[in-house]
Amino acid sequence: MSVTAAAGFVAGGLACGIKASGDPDLAVVATTSGAPVPAAAVFTSNLMTAAPVLACRDHLLATGGHAAAVVLNSGNANAATGRSGRADAERMCALTARYLGCATEAVLVCSTGLIGIPLPMASIEAGIASLAGGLTGALGADEAAGAAAAEALRTTDTHRKEVVVSGDGFVVGGMAKGAAMLAPKMATMLAVLTTDAAAPPDALRRALRAGVAESFNVLTVDGATSTNDTVILLASGLGGPPAGGQGALVDAVVAACGELAAQMAGDAEGATKVVRLRVSGAASDDDAKAAARKVAQSQLVKCSWYGQDPYWGRIASELGSSGAAFDPDKLRIAYGGTDVCREGVAVDHDAAALRAHMAGRQLVIDADLGLGQGSASVLTNDLTHAYVDENMGTS
Amino acid sequence: MSVTAAAGFVAGGLACGIKASGDPDLAVVATTSGAPVPAAAVFTSNLMTAAPVLACRDHLLATGGHAAAVVLNSGNANAATGRSGRADAERMCALTARYLGCATEAVLVCSTGLIGIPLPMASIEAGIASLAGGLTGALGADEAAGAAAAEALRTTDTHRKEVVVSGDGFVVGGMAKGAAMLAPKMATMLAVLTTDAAAPPDALRRALRAGVAESFNVLTVDGATSTNDTVILLASGLGGPPAGGQGALVDAVVAACGELAAQMAGDAEGATKVVRLRVSGAASDDDAKAAARKVAQSQLVKCSWYGQDPYWGRIASELGSSGAAFDPDKLRIAYGGTDVCREGVAVDHDAAALRAHMAGRQLVIDADLGLGQGSASVLTNDLTHAYVDENMGTS
Repeated sequence: MSVTAAAGFVAGGLACGIKASGDPDLAVVATTSGAPVPAAAVFTSNLMTAAPVLACRDHLLATGGHAAAVVLNSGNANAATGRSGRADAERMCALTARYLGCATEAVLVCSTGLIGIPLPMASIEAGIASLAGGLTGALGADEAAGAAAAEALRTTDTHRKEVVVSGDGFVVGGMAKGAAMLAPKMATMLAVLTTDAAAPPDALRRALRAGVAESFNVLTVDGATSTNDTVILLASGLGGPPAGGQGALVDAVVAACGELAAQMAGDAEGATKVVRLRVSGAASDDDAKAAARKVAQSQLVKCSWYGQDPYWGRIASELGSSGAAFDPDKLRIAYGGTDVCREGVAVDHDAAALRAHMAGRQLVIDADLGLGQGSASVLTNDLTHAYVDENMGTS
Repeated sequence: MSVTAAAGFVAGGLACGIKASGDPDLAVVATTSGAPVPAAAVFTSNLMTAAPVLACRDHLLATGGHAAAVVLNSGNANAATGRSGRADAERMCALTARYLGCATEAVLVCSTGLIGIPLPMASIEAGIASLAGGLTGALGADEAAGAAAAEALRTTDTHRKEVVVSGDGFVVGGMAKGAAMLAPKMATMLAVLTTDAAAPPDALRRALRAGVAESFNVLTVDGATSTNDTVILLASGLGGPPAGGQGALVDAVVAACGELAAQMAGDAEGATKVVRLRVSGAASDDDAKAAARKVAQSQLVKCSWYGQDPYWGRIASELGSSGAAFDPDKLRIAYGGTDVCREGVAVDHDAAALRAHMAGRQLVIDADLGLGQGSASVLTNDLTHAYVDENMGTS
């Protein structure tokens, strides 16, 4: 169960022909009633903003934070497509709205895939008709319908990404895609979350911001911030206000986003390892964040993880050039809890324990700058031959 | 001819046993007289500063910008080695000074190689004795001596890097190493330049800064700034002041640095392509620089170059998230002079010409932001399977 886990939502997905492979590439998530409900969204910070992101922003502004549906496609990002791309995004919303019987502005739209290529609108129009059109509509509230929607979001993802978090009297469900172009501020990713909790748009925005801050925004695969990143949260309200107050909803949204981000990290293109990198003892949290990101985005460091090589010298070098306040004589670095460097120099350590940790799929690396109370944590991956393979070409 | 091309300098190199492979790993460049001459240097901005960099800074301060020799080793960076590493760097200078008959402060020292491992001082001391010691000394002023010194700097370099630039009545010669951990502010690199022009330390500093700004500082292979980067320039003065004035010396130093940087770019670890990336039309030069670096350091973009894929959408996305002022509707991108994107969208182009350019070893990519007069240019490489191979392990 994913976006259909919360009461009041239907979903569906199918292959409409955007992908040459014939894999599923179109999805719709909608309220069962077809009526708008409170909604919130967070978008990419990239100024090369894709058309669907511009459409979503306009629509949420027009409705004061409400939406009845989200239409999503994979295989084409509808980015760098100019005015006609903007019109195509609007047309996807208008068509979906017509079938659901709501206003165009009550539909949000997400696209992911190749940049710079016009959408094949004839295929998409036929697909929307099949998915959302009247008696032949393929939207459902069951687990299979949610799975079909999540399947249709995949690009280089090796599997669909779904989550359900149960609160006290409410549920948050979600689906996401993302396997590369993942970096803080946000990963190249789409996610749609739904809940049956009742909450006004403002509360949803707060919950979503908190969720994104602690999940997608601490994930970096390759330092790339995409043109299309979007996270959407819809609340049907059918379950009434959360028994634990809006704070309980925030907690559930944070948990759901965290789980989806972990699934993305685990499915990062070509990666063999998920690495949790923690920086502590920085002069400030901002310093810690800058230091952690510099290390997490270092090709050299990421290759050493792939090779299971605990070469901490490269980490020290990245920390020293991160812009954060730094004193080599105060630096401590540990892999999997085993100190390899103290006061900036190598220390004797349990080499067998270190080898065993490096051979695992989950690495935990701690760097203590020894200067203050600032700390930060990022989730990242190794850089592998398979990543290069995946990104050598677009075909 | 490299560092021995200018009158007044001797050099030499040999294998002293730092590298397990038995390859050359120790070099000395010295004035023929053993007396200090005007000298200038530029160092890494990394706060994880290696011991030899600290020693050089102290010595140049003590001498007011003079030096009689540079002792260099490869195979061990003497970085993250604490107080004993600092003492080792000092000892390398003191030994060299004793054999040459100058003060310890008149000797500069450079190290490159693995981080976090103490120098094998017994091997190095024996090596310095062989190279610089009295009657058995192996320093010479001929081409072979210069080549031996340049050979001893290599780490993952596939060949030694040398340059000679002839000015009006003077010569600038140089040697360098560098194949990865190369990024603006400076590449992971060492370079020693010598000239027979007469110039005071201030003039040398100006010439060297100009040279570094237009060469090593516009080179990025992997975005890593090393712990040991050092560029040194020594002027014997034997040829007298440059006939064309100090400006002529600046020009020659800029040309020599540019040639060494081009050799590094061409020898970047695992690279199959050298890419000149030019950003124009930015709101400011700083914006252009930030945008060019963001693109040049993108794993995704670098993989597409390796795959000979002119996927400009990734470049557009990196430009949009670089922090530079950006308007998608004004963007133009060209590969090898062939426009693939205008006003932010794909344009018809000569696909055969584009394919031919992408298949070459030298790529030239232009991105015009269409906003102002700011421009910048960086030299970089593709990201390949071989880069991953080279950086998976330290052994």
